[in-house]
Amino acid sequence: MTPEEFRRFGHEVVDWIADYSDRIREYPVLSRNRPGDLTRALPPSAPETGEPMEAILSDFRDLIVPAITHWNHPAFLGYFGISGSEPGILGEMLAAGLNVNGMLWKSSPAVTELEQVTLGWLRQWLGLPKDFFGVIYDTASTSTLHAVVAARQMAVAPEMARGNWEHLVLYCSEQAHSSVEKAAVTAGIGRCNVRTIAVDENFRLRPELLSSAIEDDLRAGMQPFCVVATVGTTAMASTDPVEQIADIAARHGIWLHVDAAYGGSAAILPEMAHVMNGCARAHSLVVNPHKWLLTPVDLSVFYTSRPDLLRRAFSLVPEYLRTGDGPEAINLMDYGFQLGRRFRALKLWFVMRNYGREGLAAIIRGHLDLAQEFAGWVKNDDRFELCAPVDFSLVCFRYRGTDADNQKLLDAINRSGAALLSHAVFGGRMVLRVAIGNYRTQREDLRRVWDCIGVLAGKLG
Amino acid sequence: MTPEEFRRFGHEVVDWIADYSDRIREYPVLSRNRPGDLTRALPPSAPETGEPMEAILSDFRDLIVPAITHWNHPAFLGYFGISGSEPGILGEMLAAGLNVNGMLWKSSPAVTELEQVTLGWLRQWLGLPKDFFGVIYDTASTSTLHAVVAARQMAVAPEMARGNWEHLVLYCSEQAHSSVEKAAVTAGIGRCNVRTIAVDENFRLRPELLSSAIEDDLRAGMQPFCVVATVGTTAMASTDPVEQIADIAARHGIWLHVDAAYGGSAAILPEMAHVMNGCARAHSLVVNPHKWLLTPVDLSVFYTSRPDLLRRAFSLVPEYLRTGDGPEAINLMDYGFQLGRRFRALKLWFVMRNYGREGLAAIIRGHLDLAQEFAGWVKNDDRFELCAPVDFSLVCFRYRGTDADNQKLLDAINRSGAALLSHAVFGGRMVLRVAIGNYRTQREDLRRVWDCIGVLAGKLG
Repeated sequence: MTPEEFRRFGHEVVDWIADYSDRIREYPVLSRNRPGDLTRALPPSAPETGEPMEAILSDFRDLIVPAITHWNHPAFLGYFGISGSEPGILGEMLAAGLNVNGMLWKSSPAVTELEQVTLGWLRQWLGLPKDFFGVIYDTASTSTLHAVVAARQMAVAPEMARGNWEHLVLYCSEQAHSSVEKAAVTAGIGRCNVRTIAVDENFRLRPELLSSAIEDDLRAGMQPFCVVATVGTTAMASTDPVEQIADIAARHGIWLHVDAAYGGSAAILPEMAHVMNGCARAHSLVVNPHKWLLTPVDLSVFYTSRPDLLRRAFSLVPEYLRTGDGPEAINLMDYGFQLGRRFRALKLWFVMRNYGREGLAAIIRGHLDLAQEFAGWVKNDDRFELCAPVDFSLVCFRYRGTDADNQKLLDAINRSGAALLSHAVFGGRMVLRVAIGNYRTQREDLRRVWDCIGVLAGKLG
Repeated sequence: MTPEEFRRFGHEVVDWIADYSDRIREYPVLSRNRPGDLTRALPPSAPETGEPMEAILSDFRDLIVPAITHWNHPAFLGYFGISGSEPGILGEMLAAGLNVNGMLWKSSPAVTELEQVTLGWLRQWLGLPKDFFGVIYDTASTSTLHAVVAARQMAVAPEMARGNWEHLVLYCSEQAHSSVEKAAVTAGIGRCNVRTIAVDENFRLRPELLSSAIEDDLRAGMQPFCVVATVGTTAMASTDPVEQIADIAARHGIWLHVDAAYGGSAAILPEMAHVMNGCARAHSLVVNPHKWLLTPVDLSVFYTSRPDLLRRAFSLVPEYLRTGDGPEAINLMDYGFQLGRRFRALKLWFVMRNYGREGLAAIIRGHLDLAQEFAGWVKNDDRFELCAPVDFSLVCFRYRGTDADNQKLLDAINRSGAALLSHAVFGGRMVLRVAIGNYRTQREDLRRVWDCIGVLAGKLG
């Protein structure tokens, strides 16, 4: 493709994205495709000779877009709503255009330095300590895996590390994200050594049960090595008592990792700064700008007060990667198991600058207000009940009926294309989740969803 | 940003990328920045209020671009040369615009199905067996980590997996990529249980030494569980004897992982299909389209004949992620530790279709021919010697002088901005690497680099 052709198709693609964004409400939120529909529409083999870009873009519109579930839709309220904002998309475009790999400082100084600068900015916004070292990974799962490996490194002296972790025990609440257990499994910690601690009536890890679990394990000759606390759990956005957990972790010399992938971003609001209480005492913390800070996927931020342990675990520098650029030139490949590192900081820099703290705070504040308003609608309708405190932008509620009723309702809403909700199970009962995280979501969008839920609920009886 | 503003800035960004591509030869390959230059040019805190996009784009051009080492430059010949082709960039732009997360089939059917379709196409091009299941990860490091976890899963029955891997031993050549050892460390295999096997005069793992190492370990009561063979090693692009390694792996019931991250792509050429000899017998294989198949970073493809073991290790489905979409709707989150999954297959689909197999093969063939030509220039100049067979598009050579001379030469070339080379050490001697992988690289680019090397070498004496 010549630069001129790229210019032409590039403009066409930009226009498509602009139109798509403009008309996003016209799309069904959940794809109407059935499993296999797209596969059957595509040829079983790749073409031998090249095809014109026009044909590919036309197939994109006709075949791919109908197979998309639109996370950009303002009524996408499942899992956690996210937004890939326009400045973020522009940053991602430029990163693709540059196509650099920041494994080493010298392999593109901008990747390393802009990453350190933007993560310093974000650290200030979140009120985290100055000595927290930040590094960008792809997903919170990867961030948490690095936390577990660093914790393992702290727990077992290198000369003792022969691959036996049978004695190491990891703790998290029964509401912790599945990535915590996956991280433990990946890192070679036996699944049987992951203790899930029960929660209180507000779904917060119960510190006294954590304490007694640790003491039981110590008595049994085990070595507690890591505890994961969550700020904004996935099912109901509860926040564990991080201060108390930090006390316990400190008492036993255990690594404290905080999963603030969703909830952490709220701390850029002065009135929500408290969600980070205790987090300054963590050994590591993950927060995902691709969740609630308007940054396109993927961009997960990992902070740690012990970067030395990451380096000790991962700094294996073969000769072909050695450079002599001095101590100011850090090589981010030394802080994780992934060598390749694309230029993710660029989009975050675009977003932070174009919105500013106030702009981002206003959007998050809007989401928090909308969640309160939605919760109010639920409370005022006798057919429904609220199922969890609304501390963030997630509302958990259920139809006062059977689980089957709620499942029917969920399926009907999602199938309608008017909204996408997801579900969770609390204490054996099915609960519906409305997770507001898209910057396009307005009061009238939510009202329309609530009205739709009401109508569909009316048909249940 | 309104859709109209996005349109305007989007066009501007596309035009910048087109101009950048057109004028890429005007940039110094290696950034002239010193460590800290960019950091000092940026404010210590993020802005409170939003800044106009014009100012951000202007800083991008004035501050970021000078801090870029241009992997797009045709004289970028370090590490492995790569290309983020135009159709790939268009695909990445659309993926950023859609901003979906393909963790579940239903969370965007296109992500899952297009991934399966394109990896099926690629599998055919590479001549790999039909029963190889493909999944896209970010980097080869992540792919290899999944191989090690799956191998561990095969070696130790789930009911025995209590976190003690002290007896497990992994084998690779002393020339294997550092990501293999990092994967083992991450997966909890003791670093002391990673055996690096010596290579022959062509830098290929010596199978008889692998056999005897395995037998030694068996006699010592250890359990060999994984061997990694490489098709196109990082330092000198050697290819291990995969057939013979597969025999040994089969004899002992060991997982065979093939790291074909770089070399594998060459197999789309009929005359290079032989590089995949034996790979059909691997349990897993990684090949990186973001290296030599013109796909922007990141996109690493992992194939395995045992997806059941990945599922067994990683399928932990919490209630909030359960769906009832039936067996045709696979959920790719079940095949790895990362939950989030951006729409990477889109750019690969754009590249495979726009170039077709012939188009991509022509580019790779061009690189292979250029490497032979460059090697010829080296051979015809008494001041230099060739240091490894040129089986792919990498030429390893050295100035007939001291290591210090070669280091001086390397620094001078890289500092000149005319080219970027990297180095390796073979048998204690420093070697220069010219790795051709950019689709822009022409004979005259290489000739200019070689002339520059000659002139700089003339100044060494």
